[in-house]
Amino acid sequence: MLPRGRSRALGAAALLLLLLLLGFLLFGGDLGCERHELGGRAGAPGCFPSQLVPRVPPDWRLRGAAALDGDPLAGPRDRNPSDCGPRPPPPPPKCELLHVAIVCAGHNSSRDVITLVKSMLFYRKNPLHLHLVTDAVARNILEMLFRTWMVPAVRVSFYDADELKSQVSWIPNKHYSGLYGLMKLVLPGTLPAELARVIVLDTDITFASDIAELWALFTHFSDTQAIGLVENQSDWYLGNLWKNHRPWPALGRGFNTGVILLRLDRLRQAGWEQMWRLMARRELLTLPATSLADQDIFNAVIKEHPGLVHPLPCVWNVQLSDHTLAERCYSEASDLKVIHWNSPKKLRVKNKHVEFFRNFYLTFLEYDGNLLRRGLFGCPSQPASGAEQLQQALEQLDEEDPCFEFRQQQLTVHRVHVTFLPHEPSPSRPHDVTLVAQLSMDRLQMLEALCRHWPGPMSLALYLTDAEAQQFLRFIEASPVLAARQDVAYHVVYREGPLYPVNQLRNVALAQALTPYVFLSDIDFLPAYSLYDYLRASIEQLGLGSRRKAALVVPAFETLHYRFSFPRSKVELLALLDAGALYTFRYHEWPRGHAPTDYARWREAQAPYGVQWVADYEPYVVVPRDCPRYDPRFVGFGWNKVAHIVELDAQEYEFLVLPEAFTIHLPHAPSLDISHFRSSPTYRGCLQALKDEFHQDLSRHYGAAALKYLPALQQPWSPARG
Amino acid sequence: MLPRGRSRALGAAALLLLLLLLGFLLFGGDLGCERHELGGRAGAPGCFPSQLVPRVPPDWRLRGAAALDGDPLAGPRDRNPSDCGPRPPPPPPKCELLHVAIVCAGHNSSRDVITLVKSMLFYRKNPLHLHLVTDAVARNILEMLFRTWMVPAVRVSFYDADELKSQVSWIPNKHYSGLYGLMKLVLPGTLPAELARVIVLDTDITFASDIAELWALFTHFSDTQAIGLVENQSDWYLGNLWKNHRPWPALGRGFNTGVILLRLDRLRQAGWEQMWRLMARRELLTLPATSLADQDIFNAVIKEHPGLVHPLPCVWNVQLSDHTLAERCYSEASDLKVIHWNSPKKLRVKNKHVEFFRNFYLTFLEYDGNLLRRGLFGCPSQPASGAEQLQQALEQLDEEDPCFEFRQQQLTVHRVHVTFLPHEPSPSRPHDVTLVAQLSMDRLQMLEALCRHWPGPMSLALYLTDAEAQQFLRFIEASPVLAARQDVAYHVVYREGPLYPVNQLRNVALAQALTPYVFLSDIDFLPAYSLYDYLRASIEQLGLGSRRKAALVVPAFETLHYRFSFPRSKVELLALLDAGALYTFRYHEWPRGHAPTDYARWREAQAPYGVQWVADYEPYVVVPRDCPRYDPRFVGFGWNKVAHIVELDAQEYEFLVLPEAFTIHLPHAPSLDISHFRSSPTYRGCLQALKDEFHQDLSRHYGAAALKYLPALQQPWSPARG
Repeated sequence: MLPRGRSRALGAAALLLLLLLLGFLLFGGDLGCERHELGGRAGAPGCFPSQLVPRVPPDWRLRGAAALDGDPLAGPRDRNPSDCGPRPPPPPPKCELLHVAIVCAGHNSSRDVITLVKSMLFYRKNPLHLHLVTDAVARNILEMLFRTWMVPAVRVSFYDADELKSQVSWIPNKHYSGLYGLMKLVLPGTLPAELARVIVLDTDITFASDIAELWALFTHFSDTQAIGLVENQSDWYLGNLWKNHRPWPALGRGFNTGVILLRLDRLRQAGWEQMWRLMARRELLTLPATSLADQDIFNAVIKEHPGLVHPLPCVWNVQLSDHTLAERCYSEASDLKVIHWNSPKKLRVKNKHVEFFRNFYLTFLEYDGNLLRRGLFGCPSQPASGAEQLQQALEQLDEEDPCFEFRQQQLTVHRVHVTFLPHEPSPSRPHDVTLVAQLSMDRLQMLEALCRHWPGPMSLALYLTDAEAQQFLRFIEASPVLAARQDVAYHVVYREGPLYPVNQLRNVALAQALTPYVFLSDIDFLPAYSLYDYLRASIEQLGLGSRRKAALVVPAFETLHYRFSFPRSKVELLALLDAGALYTFRYHEWPRGHAPTDYARWREAQAPYGVQWVADYEPYVVVPRDCPRYDPRFVGFGWNKVAHIVELDAQEYEFLVLPEAFTIHLPHAPSLDISHFRSSPTYRGCLQALKDEFHQDLSRHYGAAALKYLPALQQPWSPARG
Repeated sequence: MLPRGRSRALGAAALLLLLLLLGFLLFGGDLGCERHELGGRAGAPGCFPSQLVPRVPPDWRLRGAAALDGDPLAGPRDRNPSDCGPRPPPPPPKCELLHVAIVCAGHNSSRDVITLVKSMLFYRKNPLHLHLVTDAVARNILEMLFRTWMVPAVRVSFYDADELKSQVSWIPNKHYSGLYGLMKLVLPGTLPAELARVIVLDTDITFASDIAELWALFTHFSDTQAIGLVENQSDWYLGNLWKNHRPWPALGRGFNTGVILLRLDRLRQAGWEQMWRLMARRELLTLPATSLADQDIFNAVIKEHPGLVHPLPCVWNVQLSDHTLAERCYSEASDLKVIHWNSPKKLRVKNKHVEFFRNFYLTFLEYDGNLLRRGLFGCPSQPASGAEQLQQALEQLDEEDPCFEFRQQQLTVHRVHVTFLPHEPSPSRPHDVTLVAQLSMDRLQMLEALCRHWPGPMSLALYLTDAEAQQFLRFIEASPVLAARQDVAYHVVYREGPLYPVNQLRNVALAQALTPYVFLSDIDFLPAYSLYDYLRASIEQLGLGSRRKAALVVPAFETLHYRFSFPRSKVELLALLDAGALYTFRYHEWPRGHAPTDYARWREAQAPYGVQWVADYEPYVVVPRDCPRYDPRFVGFGWNKVAHIVELDAQEYEFLVLPEAFTIHLPHAPSLDISHFRSSPTYRGCLQALKDEFHQDLSRHYGAAALKYLPALQQPWSPARG
C-alpha cells in the first residue's frame, strides 16, 4: 500500500490527466487544420492524429445555423466572440454533383431563370444537375437554350409542370406566382426516387457565392431534419400588418421558401405527400386561400412538425421585399451569399442598399453567357452533347488558312433564346403567312414601322449580346406599338465571332414560324399595307401547297429618303416610280439581283406570271414553311440569299410574280460588318471558296442538273453587292 | 519539509501540468474558432480564454507558404493529408485599408490596369488605396478615369515615373516592359515613408478572388522576411533553355515578380536601396543586361539574402507563359486566385486551359465598370470627391416629374477614358485645327472615310459600353487606314442612362483638342478634301485669335446616296447641286437651320462674308479651342447645337462664311434614340422646359442682350429636326 501522501499526489496527477483528456474531448473538434480551406473530404483523415479527434457531435454542428430562439436573424458575425460560433461546413467532395430544382413557367420566368443560372455558374466549381419543372413554353425555350449553350458539367432534366397541375390545382392561391408557385410541394414525388438531396430555388434568386457552400449545409442537418430554410425577413407571419390580417400559421416569423435544402429521402420516408395535403386541407377550412403559395403550406407543416426544419443562416436568402429586416442580416457585404428579389416590385423595391444589390443582379443579367462555357479543372465530365465533335472540328481548322475566320464562324454554335418576350401565336388560319427576318441592334428602329405595315405573325431573329438583349427588352417595353403585338416572336441569337451569321439567323427565325407559309423578308423592307391579306388570298387562289410547289415573288423597290409617303396602292407606287421618288431595288448598284422579276411586265400585269431563274436572282419570296433552309456556310455578307434562291430553283420551285404585291427598302448606312469586309480581297477570295464548296454540294444533291448554276457561281463577286 | 514520497508525487503532477501547458503551446494556435469565417480581427478576443492561447510561433506559420525545398509548386491540396498543411491566414480586419502599387506607362498599359482594377474591385470587400507610378500619358488617362468613375472606398495616388527614371536608367534591360519594368525596385524609396506594407502588381494580372486574402498573407511573414513572392513557373532561371542560356542568378527556379507582397518598412531598414544597386552592379560586370527587368535583380538579391523572401502559395500568381508549369498549381479551379498573363503573347499564349483563363479575363475586360460604383456595407468611407453632392442632387429629383429621365441624365457623371488608343499628337503648327465630333457604335463605319477626308488632328468622343469599347478596339486594329493614324484621339465615354448625352460628349472631345482652333463637326459629315489646309490658311489670313473673335462657317450639304463621287472642288460641288445629286443640308426637312449661311451668296462668293445670327441657325463652325462649351443640359436630341450657336452670338462671335469651304452629310437611318423620342409629346414638353431654363441662364449672364433670343426659344420644337 502506498503512503497516504503519495496516493493523494497520484490522485492529483490522475485528475490533471483527466482534465487534459477532457480538454481534448471538449475542443478536439477544432484542433488541427481547417478542412474547409484544405478541401478535405468529409471523413478524410484530418491533420491531427485521428485517434485524438473525436467526431463533432451533431448538436454542436447545429450551432452553425441560426437558432430559432434568440435572434434568428443574427448571422455568425453577430455572435458573442467568446462563443465559439459556427464552424463552416466542409465543402462537398470535389467534383460532387450538386442537384438544383427550379419551377419555371412562361416567357418572363424563363428569362429570370437564365440570370439565376448565370450567377450560379459564375461561382460554381462543381458539376450541376438542374431539375427544371416547366410548362410547355419554358421547356421549349430552356431546352433549346441549354442545348446551344453547351456548358460543360451541367446536366438538365425537364419535368412537365402541366402533369403536376392536378396535384395542386385544388388549392386556392392568391400569390402572383399562381399555380406554379405551389409546385415545390410535389417535388419529393416528382424528382427521381433515387435523388436524396436537392436545393430548390425560386426564379428570382441571384447567387453571390459558390452554391457548393450552400450544399455543404446539408451536413449540418440532424438525423431527422429534412427541410433547410432561412427565416422570413418580413413581418408577414406575425399577423399584424393590418387590421384582421390573418396569415397562415407559422413558427415565429416563419420561413421563406425562395431557397430550400430538401432531404427528399427523408421527406418521402416521413410521408410528406400526406403531411402537407392534410395540413393544407385543415387550414383551408378556416382560411380562404394561400397568400404566399407553397410558403404558407411549408410553414403550416413546420409549425406542426418543427423537428423537420433546419434553420439556415440568413445570408443564404437575403430577402429584398419592402420593409425587410434583411439589413440586419447583410450588415457585412462579405456575408452576402444569395439575394432574393421577393418583392413583386422586384428591382424597383425600396431599400437603401438596393443599388448595391441591383448591381449584382445586373452583373449577371448582362453577363456574356458564352464566357460560362468553361470546363471544370480536374473534374472529369462528359462534354455537353455535340460539344466534343464541335471541339474536334474546331481543332482541325488551320489557323493559317486565310479563311480561318469564316470556317470558325460557320462552326460556331450560338446560344439561342427563342421567344425571348411573351408570345401568343394568333389562332391558326388557313394559308396564313409569317414574315421572317433577322436583325441586330442597329435596325431596332425598323420594328415599329414594320408592325404597322404587317398586321400578321412575324418571326424575327435578333443577333445580340446579353447586354443588348436587355436594351432590346427596354426598347419593346417603351413602345406601345410593339408591346401590344403578341404575335411577333423575337428569338435572340447571342453574338459570338467576328462575322454576321446571316443565314444561321434566318434559319432560326424560319424554324420558329408556326404558319404554313413564310414571307422571307429583310428587316430594311416595309411591305405594302395590304400585303399580308393579299398573300393569304393569293396562296388560296393559286392552290399552293398540295397542288403547286411555288415561290411567290414580291417585287422590291427602294427609296432614298428616310421619310416619304408610303404608297397605299400599286397605282400610287407607279406614280412615285415615274416621279423618281422610288426606284426598283438596287437600281443603281446591282440591278441584276431583281431584273428577272421583270418590272416592266409587272407594271401591266393583272395576274401572277411565272419567271425563270437567272444567275444572281435574289427576289423576296413567299414559300411553304418546309422550304429548304438557308445555307449556313454563308456568313458575313454576300451570296447568302442568292444561294437560297438557287436551292429553290434546284428543287423545282416555280417562281410566280404577284401583280399587286410590293415591298420597299428604306435607306440606311452600310452596316459595320459590310464596310469592314467589302474592301477586303481576302474576303472576296473566301467567298469564292464558299461558292465552290456550295456548288460541289449542289452537284452531289442534284447531279447534272446543278451544272446550270456553275457559271453563276464562278462569276467574281462584285463589291457593290450586299 | 514535505515527505519525499509526497514530493515525488507532486513532481509527477507538475510534470503533467507542464505537459498540459506544452500541449497548448504546441497546438494552442489552432484551438478555438476559425477566425477566417468569423471575421474576427487580429488581436480581437478569440474563442478560447485568451490567456491560454499563446501566439503562433513564426516558424509554424511559415508552413503556410510553399516551401523552397521539396516541390515548390505543390499547392496546399497536394500535401499529404497527415501533414497539417497551411492554416489560411485570418482575413485583415474588416474595413482595413489595403495598399496596392502598380507601375503603368502609356496608353495600352492604362487599358490593362483598368481591367486589373475591375477584377480587384469585383471581389474586394475592403477599402483600397492605389499607388500608381505613371508616366504623363497614363496619369492623364487614369486621373480622369478614376475621378469620373467615383468608386466609393477607393483612393488613388499618383507618382511621377519620369522623376524615377534616373534611378534605373543606368541598368541595361532587354525586357519588353522597358525602363518602367525596373521601377518596382525603387518603390520603397518612392512610396510614402509611413507606408509599411504594399501589394505590388504587374498590369497583366487578373484577380479571381478577394485581394484581402492575399493581403492577409503578410501575417505569415517571419520577423525578418520582407518580400512575398510566388516561385517562377517557367524553367528560365534553371539556365538550360538553350545553349549558352545564362540567366541572372536565382534561388532554384527563382521567383516571379508579377505579384509582390512588400514590407516596405523592413526593406528600408535593411538598406534595400543599397542592396539591389550593389547586386545589380556586380552582376552587370559579367552579364550584359537584365532580361526580365526588375525580376532578375530581385532574384539576384534573394539568392544572396534568402532570409528576405517569403514564398507565397503558387495560386497567387498562376503564370500563363508558354511551357509553364502552372497546371500543376491550378489543378483545382477552386485554387485559382490570381492569373498572370506574363507571356509576351498575352491572351494568345498556348495553354490547354487558356480558354478558361481567357474567359476570366474577358469577364472583366467587358465588365460594366459602372456596376462597381457600389459602396462597402458597414465600412464608413468618404465618398469619392463630388459623389456626395451628386447623390444629394439625384435624391432631390422628383421621380414623378415627366422630365425625370432628362434631369437624371444631365446629372449623370460618365466614366471617361481619354486617349483610349495610342495617340501621338503631331507637332504643333500655328493656326492648326482639330476636327471635333462624337459618335457611338452605329457610326464607326464613318471613321475610315473621315480619315481620308481630314488629314489633320481629330478629337473624337465615343459613347460606348465597356464591351463595345473592346469591339471598337478590334475595329481600329483591323483597319490599316485607322491604325496608321496616330493623330486621331479617341475618348471613350461610358454609356449610362437612356438619353444620349450629346453635348457632354462634344465637351469631352473639345476639352481634349490640343490645337489652337477646332472644327466643330458631326460624325455623319465628310469635309472637303482641301478643308484642313484651307481652314489653316483662312485662320491666318483673317487674323483670327488676337485680332478677331470669329466663328468660321463651313457650309453644309447633303447627299441621299451612300455611294457618290465626292466633289473635289467647289465647282464640282455646284455641278452636283445643280444636277440634283446634292442638296443644301436638310433642304427637305429643316432648311431654317442653315438658311442664314446664304447659299446663294456663297455660290458667287470669292471672299469670306459675315452673316447675322437668326433663330434656329446651327452651322458647322471653326472656333478657337477656348470657345464656350456646349450646354450639357441638352441630352437626347434637339437644341443641342442651336444653343451653342446662340451662346457664340451672345458672346459676340462674328459669323464668317468661308467661300471655298464645304462639308457633306452622308445618309443614314435615324438613330434608335431619335426614333424613340421624336414621336413623344413628353419629350417635346421636356425640351421646352430645358429651353426655358437655358434662356433664364442666358438672361442671367447677358442681361437685356439675351432678350433677342427669347422668340427663338419659345418656338415649338419641330419633330422634323434632329
